[in-house]
Amino acid sequence: MSTAEEAHPDLIDPIRFRRSPRSFTDRAIAPDIMRLLFEAARWSASCFNEQPWRFVYAHREDSANFARIAACLVEFNRSWAANAPVLMVTLATTHFEKTGKPNRHADHDLGLALGNLSLQAATLGLQIHEMAGFDPERTVTELGVPAGVVPLTIATIGYPGDPANLSEQLQAKETAPRERKPLEEFVFEGMYGSP
Amino acid sequence: MSTAEEAHPDLIDPIRFRRSPRSFTDRAIAPDIMRLLFEAARWSASCFNEQPWRFVYAHREDSANFARIAACLVEFNRSWAANAPVLMVTLATTHFEKTGKPNRHADHDLGLALGNLSLQAATLGLQIHEMAGFDPERTVTELGVPAGVVPLTIATIGYPGDPANLSEQLQAKETAPRERKPLEEFVFEGMYGSP
Repeated sequence: MSTAEEAHPDLIDPIRFRRSPRSFTDRAIAPDIMRLLFEAARWSASCFNEQPWRFVYAHREDSANFARIAACLVEFNRSWAANAPVLMVTLATTHFEKTGKPNRHADHDLGLALGNLSLQAATLGLQIHEMAGFDPERTVTELGVPAGVVPLTIATIGYPGDPANLSEQLQAKETAPRERKPLEEFVFEGMYGSP
Repeated sequence: MSTAEEAHPDLIDPIRFRRSPRSFTDRAIAPDIMRLLFEAARWSASCFNEQPWRFVYAHREDSANFARIAACLVEFNRSWAANAPVLMVTLATTHFEKTGKPNRHADHDLGLALGNLSLQAATLGLQIHEMAGFDPERTVTELGVPAGVVPLTIATIGYPGDPANLSEQLQAKETAPRERKPLEEFVFEGMYGSP
């Protein structure tokens, strides 16, 4: 069971006030801000320091490249995400560079890097919305993704905007209280399942 | 190619000064601090808000439970990690609760939650060191992990200590400059591989 509530007040602000919004303002993201977001990802930990994360992004004003990424989204996501100032594909390499062996932790490490990137973004007034609803095969073809690299999500990045810009259905989602499982359902001391 | 350097000075401090240390002080972690770390994980984003992350942890003074987790580590990791004040197993659920379908993003979302947890920890003067070197099958047996939940890493949590407490070989690793790939190798604008 998830319950609706506010994030714990002792959490750092970028965690406490992070959201996955669907409405963004028209404000573009400056190139040095984009670089800083990727620096945040860059300094994440990874298994054997493999750094398996990869990113392909486009600003909305770069209309051909932006449209190419937007075209990979499912219709529902495209309906709102195509108004964001930046679309970003997140990808993971599947094998270790040095040994050629499969990297069991590539997806996990990409997620870890996104954690860093999201909190750096929130500190700068930006929010990220990662989406699973896209066509990975089409993304590989459209963006020229080589073998051994797999797209995991497509994300919007932008400055949160007025929910009134969204459809009624999405407005309700945008302003709904956040829901999470209580700690007791996912944190165990000593043995799995113990309180 | 990775290059040795300092993290970008404009990054938020918990990203800039995050490390994966092997030396920790003896200082225990207070229960309310542990709870706050898990609150940080709890407020992460996840695919369909599934919250697939699970955690099993033990304080070192809880010697039976701590030893049970330590026994799952490979020898090399156990040699230093058994001195940390807390060991934590991170796990992901493999299927969506509502639909029973496989969750392609469970590992990614666990990583994202670890990103939040690590930065909240760093803000409190704690550091995390996640390890891939452990025996997942043994971990499942020792901790009573049910079907549909998979251990991904075992992590140490603690206040960073004096590198002199480590073996000479590990001291060198502890104080070595951090190395990362340049942005140009993993961030692309428009198309994969483009600068």
